[in-house]
Amino acid sequence: MKHIILIQCKDQLGLVYTISKILAEHQLNITVMREFVDEASNQFFVRIECRGLLNNQELLHAQLTNNLPLKAKITINPPRIKKVAILVTKEHHCLGDTLIRNFFNTLDAEICCIIGNYDHLQTFCEKFNIPFYHISHVGISKEEFEKKILLQINEYGPDYIILAKFMRILSSEFISHFPNRIINIHHSFLPAFVGANPYRKAFERGVKLIGATAHFVTDDLDEGPIIAQETIPVNHTFDVSQMVILGREIEKSVLSKAMQLVFQDRVFITENKTIVFD
Amino acid sequence: MKHIILIQCKDQLGLVYTISKILAEHQLNITVMREFVDEASNQFFVRIECRGLLNNQELLHAQLTNNLPLKAKITINPPRIKKVAILVTKEHHCLGDTLIRNFFNTLDAEICCIIGNYDHLQTFCEKFNIPFYHISHVGISKEEFEKKILLQINEYGPDYIILAKFMRILSSEFISHFPNRIINIHHSFLPAFVGANPYRKAFERGVKLIGATAHFVTDDLDEGPIIAQETIPVNHTFDVSQMVILGREIEKSVLSKAMQLVFQDRVFITENKTIVFD
Amino acid sequence: MKHIILIQCKDQLGLVYTISKILAEHQLNITVMREFVDEASNQFFVRIECRGLLNNQELLHAQLTNNLPLKAKITINPPRIKKVAILVTKEHHCLGDTLIRNFFNTLDAEICCIIGNYDHLQTFCEKFNIPFYHISHVGISKEEFEKKILLQINEYGPDYIILAKFMRILSSEFISHFPNRIINIHHSFLPAFVGANPYRKAFERGVKLIGATAHFVTDDLDEGPIIAQETIPVNHTFDVSQMVILGREIEKSVLSKAMQLVFQDRVFITENKTIVFD
Amino acid sequence: MKHIILIQCKDQLGLVYTISKILAEHQLNITVMREFVDEASNQFFVRIECRGLLNNQELLHAQLTNNLPLKAKITINPPRIKKVAILVTKEHHCLGDTLIRNFFNTLDAEICCIIGNYDHLQTFCEKFNIPFYHISHVGISKEEFEKKILLQINEYGPDYIILAKFMRILSSEFISHFPNRIINIHHSFLPAFVGANPYRKAFERGVKLIGATAHFVTDDLDEGPIIAQETIPVNHTFDVSQMVILGREIEKSVLSKAMQLVFQDRVFITENKTIVFD
Repeated sequence: MKHIILIQCKDQLGLVYTISKILAEHQLNITVMREFVDEASNQFFVRIECRGLLNNQELLHAQLTNNLPLKAKITINPPRIKKVAILVTKEHHCLGDTLIRNFFNTLDAEICCIIGNYDHLQTFCEKFNIPFYHISHVGISKEEFEKKILLQINEYGPDYIILAKFMRILSSEFISHFPNRIINIHHSFLPAFVGANPYRKAFERGVKLIGATAHFVTDDLDEGPIIAQETIPVNHTFDVSQMVILGREIEKSVLSKAMQLVFQDRVFITENKTIVFD
Repeated sequence: MKHIILIQCKDQLGLVYTISKILAEHQLNITVMREFVDEASNQFFVRIECRGLLNNQELLHAQLTNNLPLKAKITINPPRIKKVAILVTKEHHCLGDTLIRNFFNTLDAEICCIIGNYDHLQTFCEKFNIPFYHISHVGISKEEFEKKILLQINEYGPDYIILAKFMRILSSEFISHFPNRIINIHHSFLPAFVGANPYRKAFERGVKLIGATAHFVTDDLDEGPIIAQETIPVNHTFDVSQMVILGREIEKSVLSKAMQLVFQDRVFITENKTIVFD
Repeated sequence: MKHIILIQCKDQLGLVYTISKILAEHQLNITVMREFVDEASNQFFVRIECRGLLNNQELLHAQLTNNLPLKAKITINPPRIKKVAILVTKEHHCLGDTLIRNFFNTLDAEICCIIGNYDHLQTFCEKFNIPFYHISHVGISKEEFEKKILLQINEYGPDYIILAKFMRILSSEFISHFPNRIINIHHSFLPAFVGANPYRKAFERGVKLIGATAHFVTDDLDEGPIIAQETIPVNHTFDVSQMVILGREIEKSVLSKAMQLVFQDRVFITENKTIVFD
Repeated sequence: MKHIILIQCKDQLGLVYTISKILAEHQLNITVMREFVDEASNQFFVRIECRGLLNNQELLHAQLTNNLPLKAKITINPPRIKKVAILVTKEHHCLGDTLIRNFFNTLDAEICCIIGNYDHLQTFCEKFNIPFYHISHVGISKEEFEKKILLQINEYGPDYIILAKFMRILSSEFISHFPNRIINIHHSFLPAFVGANPYRKAFERGVKLIGATAHFVTDDLDEGPIIAQETIPVNHTFDVSQMVILGREIEKSVLSKAMQLVFQDRVFITENKTIVFD
């Protein structure tokens, strides 16, 4: 049987030794190991895939806890299928791609609900029997709007929230409920073209490639830890609308790649960066 | 025999007809034709490769001038080998790559001289028998510094000036002598990380790809028309110095691609953008 | 109003002139023109986008026909929305992506029917109200199998047939009904790994990138004119099944790109190659 | 101080434990660790970067040897600068790029000599004060030709031999002297277009991307373990000679990347594949 073990803690001498000793005592054979020490923050990160029976997972956890530095974050066999809520506005491409993966069980996750601040995508979502909630932002305060979303989401208790082209900016208050658990897809190669209308800005600047960036959402708009980025060539014949159309291809692709990395527990966060053991 | 014809003018009905009629009268057979109308600026651009004897190039030029809109820019058979001056500071990678191409006649250009504000690359340049002039910026005003460079360059009368990692900012005055004829390589995917230390900024932001941009130099720092851009993936294991090392690969590659496009007369400029018939 | 004009004929002097003269007489202003002469086959290809009223399309067609070389293929304003039939086996990823595009009207085509030699994808297709026909190859001859497919397809009269991971080899007889109108996606960078199990072969060879190729189907298996190709990096940690999963991303992407190019009338075929005015 | 440790051996339970225990006893702190078990061949591979004084490297080696499976290949701090001999024919691009890196000490290696079966590149090499030996294959047997090369190379005792577009096929006898120590750059994305004239074959097939492959040389022509591969888009306007010119860009880039990986001890070989800890 295959197991996954994730550890993040203060770095010190002999951590790999300590960890691998305990695993060996449990007769676990390490097949893939990715380790990294971030010398700036003096943090140690490891992702281990190992094989073997694991008769006493609690004991393993306790032994690791007792032998690693204080406050070590230790995860043994995180849930293989994550539960996710999706927030959308009007654009369908990221949502559509994600729904297909969900339907055919290739998402490493299960979509529990979809919330749209417009109802444009409702019919589409219902084809896949995923609950769609239309929560409009119109005529109510941001606070009220987010409270409604929160209430709805909390009915499901998702591991992650995916902003699949959700075009409202979330408040710090909202974000604080899901630290490092909200993933956004931004339609530019950040930090270029932060904020609204990146394709128009790209067109006006005359760039020769456009990009997309998937990142965790933090208080700072478009400034959270980047998970994945991609670019694609454009040329002088592209107007803004053609950039939008082409850009969708990489928005889709980058978001799905980021989700896969996160849902397969390959991503650690340290300060404002990610460590990705792909 | 193969001929190249470049035309840029105000757009109007029947331009392709007018041009192709005149070419047909000269018994020139069009083999590759790239045409573009920029609807924003109402400008017409065409690059024509054609075959045939061309007994009277002056007549062809006159006929085109007489039949196209006023102020049309018409170029018939631009010089196949451009003359270029190169400005450098200390880094060798873009220069080295260019010198090798020059030595083996694959640059579509001929390097007439190299000017360095340090003398670090002098020995290297002399291997290739290219005149190297060390013009230091130290202890003199920017005005004086640029005047010296200008004097030296003007001895050679180059078609283009290549900033192959020249780390001084040129003044408007200097640039005004070579409108749309100075090409710079910037070590980021512009407009991200304008100005100094882009790799440090990239490292701090935790981007997952770094880039390089070749552009024409204008008054606005790093804001001139972009000719070519490229990105390359990085990950959490890259510190700043490793980004610098990897970045050199695409700086080299983007600059050489941009030079090839420009020297093969494939690039038009309109306002702050390029039209590239690659 | 925007018009598209496609012409393929024997090359001769003055073709652009002839064509542009006729267009100018119809008050059509050329905005984008891509022209190419294949010197090997002495064939001329042009794709023209122009603007203007076009009061008499038949007259334009007749004038072009009368003034161009014999047997010129001339198309004025091909149908903007192509009609396509899709053939599938069990894999869903190319089909899913295409159905989403179809549903949201971004395919430049309309799917008229889907035929599967298994019924695995039936439920999924029915969500989108596209007729799905299960035509099994089991227990019948290839001839009979293809006859059934042909009968079903002919009810719809599609412009193109898309093999979206259809895992049966079609006979020459079948193909002859749709010359240059069947598009296949092959899961390798052809001509590497022709035929069955390309990912297994890629794994065994230890390649560092895998690919996908969209091509027109001809009598020679995997040897038809290539429309688009893409590759994506892999490494030693990928087993065959992980290559299959990653490969799906580019299969999807290459097929959709090829369909877009073909459906937007950007692809010409000459002998065993394509000319793509992208 | 930073140390690099490479181990390849039969896989068994507890290897990481055994290794990390010994390292911890030597007060070595692991900063980057890449580990992989190839389940097909049941081989274990690890590359460790660690920090600390290492007072007794011999003792560390002995302890690892005694505690790891029989026949484990253990390397502690391999030479940081490899010694390489380069074989060329007439093409300059890979050689030129490598010489520049060598001159500016960014190659992770030192070129000890260059052997050409033509003298075309002699003048160029001499600029860099690298001994160039012209050993012609004309008028002598292959056996004799290779014997001469061998004699010359053996004067220098290089760690690796780089075939930088060396256009002769080496015999098994010659290769047997340098097992897994000869690196070739082939101008196609292998296994497509094995053998001579890959660009002509690519042109005839009408591919939409061309490639380059760096691999270790074995008895089977173009069949050795692949280290790195890259592709680059082409289109219908490319004739063979333009593909050759464009292809040089990725040949250069792939070869230099492969050399960097090998010279930085990031590449293991198992059967006919590489494991690359990049």
